[in-house]
Amino acid sequence: MKHIGTTLLGAALLALTAPAAAQTAPLTAAQSDPAVLGWMQGSPPPRDKQVRFDDASMWAFPQTRWTFSNWRELLPTTSIKRGAMPVAVLPRAERADLDAIRFTPLGAAAPMSWEQSLAATYTDGIVVLHKGRIVYERYFGALKPEGQHIAFSVTKSFVGTLAEALIAEGRLDPNRTMASYVPELAGSGFGDATVRQVMDMRTGLAFDESYGGADGDVARMSFAANALPLPAGYKGPLGLYAHLQTIGKNGAHGADFSYRTPNSGALGWVTERITGQSIAQQIEARYWSRMGMEQDASINVDRMGTGFAGGGMALALRDMARFGEMLRLGGRWQGQEIVSPAAVAAIFTPGDVAAFAPTNYPGLKGGSYASQWWHRPNGVTMAVGIHGQGIYIDRQAEVVIARFASFPVASNVNINPVTIPAYDAMVAKLAE
Amino acid sequence: MKHIGTTLLGAALLALTAPAAAQTAPLTAAQSDPAVLGWMQGSPPPRDKQVRFDDASMWAFPQTRWTFSNWRELLPTTSIKRGAMPVAVLPRAERADLDAIRFTPLGAAAPMSWEQSLAATYTDGIVVLHKGRIVYERYFGALKPEGQHIAFSVTKSFVGTLAEALIAEGRLDPNRTMASYVPELAGSGFGDATVRQVMDMRTGLAFDESYGGADGDVARMSFAANALPLPAGYKGPLGLYAHLQTIGKNGAHGADFSYRTPNSGALGWVTERITGQSIAQQIEARYWSRMGMEQDASINVDRMGTGFAGGGMALALRDMARFGEMLRLGGRWQGQEIVSPAAVAAIFTPGDVAAFAPTNYPGLKGGSYASQWWHRPNGVTMAVGIHGQGIYIDRQAEVVIARFASFPVASNVNINPVTIPAYDAMVAKLAE
Repeated sequence: MKHIGTTLLGAALLALTAPAAAQTAPLTAAQSDPAVLGWMQGSPPPRDKQVRFDDASMWAFPQTRWTFSNWRELLPTTSIKRGAMPVAVLPRAERADLDAIRFTPLGAAAPMSWEQSLAATYTDGIVVLHKGRIVYERYFGALKPEGQHIAFSVTKSFVGTLAEALIAEGRLDPNRTMASYVPELAGSGFGDATVRQVMDMRTGLAFDESYGGADGDVARMSFAANALPLPAGYKGPLGLYAHLQTIGKNGAHGADFSYRTPNSGALGWVTERITGQSIAQQIEARYWSRMGMEQDASINVDRMGTGFAGGGMALALRDMARFGEMLRLGGRWQGQEIVSPAAVAAIFTPGDVAAFAPTNYPGLKGGSYASQWWHRPNGVTMAVGIHGQGIYIDRQAEVVIARFASFPVASNVNINPVTIPAYDAMVAKLAE
Repeated sequence: MKHIGTTLLGAALLALTAPAAAQTAPLTAAQSDPAVLGWMQGSPPPRDKQVRFDDASMWAFPQTRWTFSNWRELLPTTSIKRGAMPVAVLPRAERADLDAIRFTPLGAAAPMSWEQSLAATYTDGIVVLHKGRIVYERYFGALKPEGQHIAFSVTKSFVGTLAEALIAEGRLDPNRTMASYVPELAGSGFGDATVRQVMDMRTGLAFDESYGGADGDVARMSFAANALPLPAGYKGPLGLYAHLQTIGKNGAHGADFSYRTPNSGALGWVTERITGQSIAQQIEARYWSRMGMEQDASINVDRMGTGFAGGGMALALRDMARFGEMLRLGGRWQGQEIVSPAAVAAIFTPGDVAAFAPTNYPGLKGGSYASQWWHRPNGVTMAVGIHGQGIYIDRQAEVVIARFASFPVASNVNINPVTIPAYDAMVAKLAE
């Protein structure tokens, strides 16, 4: 459970900001609306309304409600360009009857409405596609349709899709070791892991992706990622790839699923070494420049330009929906093959259920994880990021949901009990 | 002469990097091609091929040939969005006979061709519009048509255009003092300057915009701008507006023209205070979202989100040309008024020639500066940024030229002797 209970970078924040702040009852979505609180308003904003990198305030709730929709203003980023294609306009068939959908959150006694669920989960934006049409779309907080929101670990699923594409093309052998592709990893815990073990997060790495102090593993990753200010006297790695090489082993590879973000970074490294292109360049070449996306996307970079494959993409909500819809359609989009049938099949194939079972995630009993994607036992495939980011693909129901949020706590363990039954109720309603 | 002889931020670099490097004969454009030199190639790039913020290597030539086309990857930036309008495609009437144009650079004995001039000035991209049509367009180095390049002080002319728009709308009185709009400036050298004196850079500020040491004025501005790593023990201002308040007075306002970048920052501050919008938001609302631009633009920001009005815009070459062309057309674009006739008239009205005369800039004898724009005596109006950035508007000849470059030395004093006669020869050829 601990992985999604970890705010990747926010964990390190806990060590830098007053822990007491995280323990008080959080403001509601309405109370924490960034416009109401006035974050970054004024020229310049008053000191207590500034959201900054250098004091790590960007990682504190409720500032995160502004941060997550203004990523490039806080961190160096590289662009993932949409190119010159006309926008692939998503047809609309919006319905007024969906806000009233009712469902009971997992473990709750009383039902709530779909509309109530959006505030309960601090939703910044959500779009529901049914049979390719937008049936529902809302924006809250600091997000606008033309804005970009950090996707956190949804990024991993883009990287996993790149890897499956390379496998389908015969350019990546998932049974080979990581060190055979990236010799620099030979001396690390990754060295003798297979690519498949890394893709499925079944590695025995000595990396504790849980809340820690300023000297915890997550903090160390964040310092290397250039996503947290360096403490005085910092002597650690200054880049993501240098950081990966410091990670050792504390168990056998190939055992139970254990969610550790560095797996995604190492997988990204393999794809970069094979293609000679950065993650950003690959995503641009394969997807962004070929799908009529509305907006450029981006990924934050470390000090030497390495994109944060574990969680650094920021993109527009409808573009995230387009990516999910393209996969739902079998990898084809506007008459073009974007992802090959073999890669699509791999993405929609669940992982090892037994290896996943010990996680006991709410709403994911009987589920699995494979190729950097999550699977529910009902055939639903998901990309998931902390604080409530996600792509939800239900092929049987012909439904795709894309969602951005700024839930006060990183863990989707706190969010799934609402969103999973909400999505089930939405799917049922759309099937009527 | 000293102003354009100053690399705004690069000046501080000189104090941080080995001065000897700046004194050796620079590589030619071909020798310094970023692809040839391999900057930022590899995953990760080898240490000696990295272009970084934290070691200030981003400011050293020849790394600058990569830096200037990859701005957002090195600094936090905020976007200036193009919005949802269809692209205003620039019609093409490209000519094959323009590369052979010959001219003699100022002070030179031998002529050179237009084509040779592009390499001589380390051009990254240039587009020539004649009667609204693209007659010539080239890209070099790290710039592509779909990329964005730092415009440096061309940014000032966007800010000056915003100010003239506010004056035309009766929202800004150029005869009022700066302190009357921004009380925080009352105790600074700006306090009793009129807005007009600031717009025309005729202020007696104690700011030396010339090459200096790590404790020079330009370095101090760059530290505050979040554009240079802070030296150990840094105690100075952490934001651009805090920095402006530290600038005193060393002479009377209203005397000779003296180019000092903080004027543009203070002017931007006035426009932000009047409109309640950041520079980026104003440029987006007035221009980018209404002109069918091809790309989003951006501006780098300090630690609290203030855009660098003195030189932080990065944009696509053709979009910079569109802005110039819109002004050439009297402020109208695709049937819409983008800039009011009064503001356009102000932008095209030269400044005080006598106040400008002491500068003795090559190619600008008899010229002037007003409203953050440059004027040649022949009726040409220009936006100019260090290292060879520029917009060149010749209304009589119906010619607009937009240019990005990465000349090794900041000063346009070294570039004008080539570009000014080159543009004259281009205009003459197009008039045949």
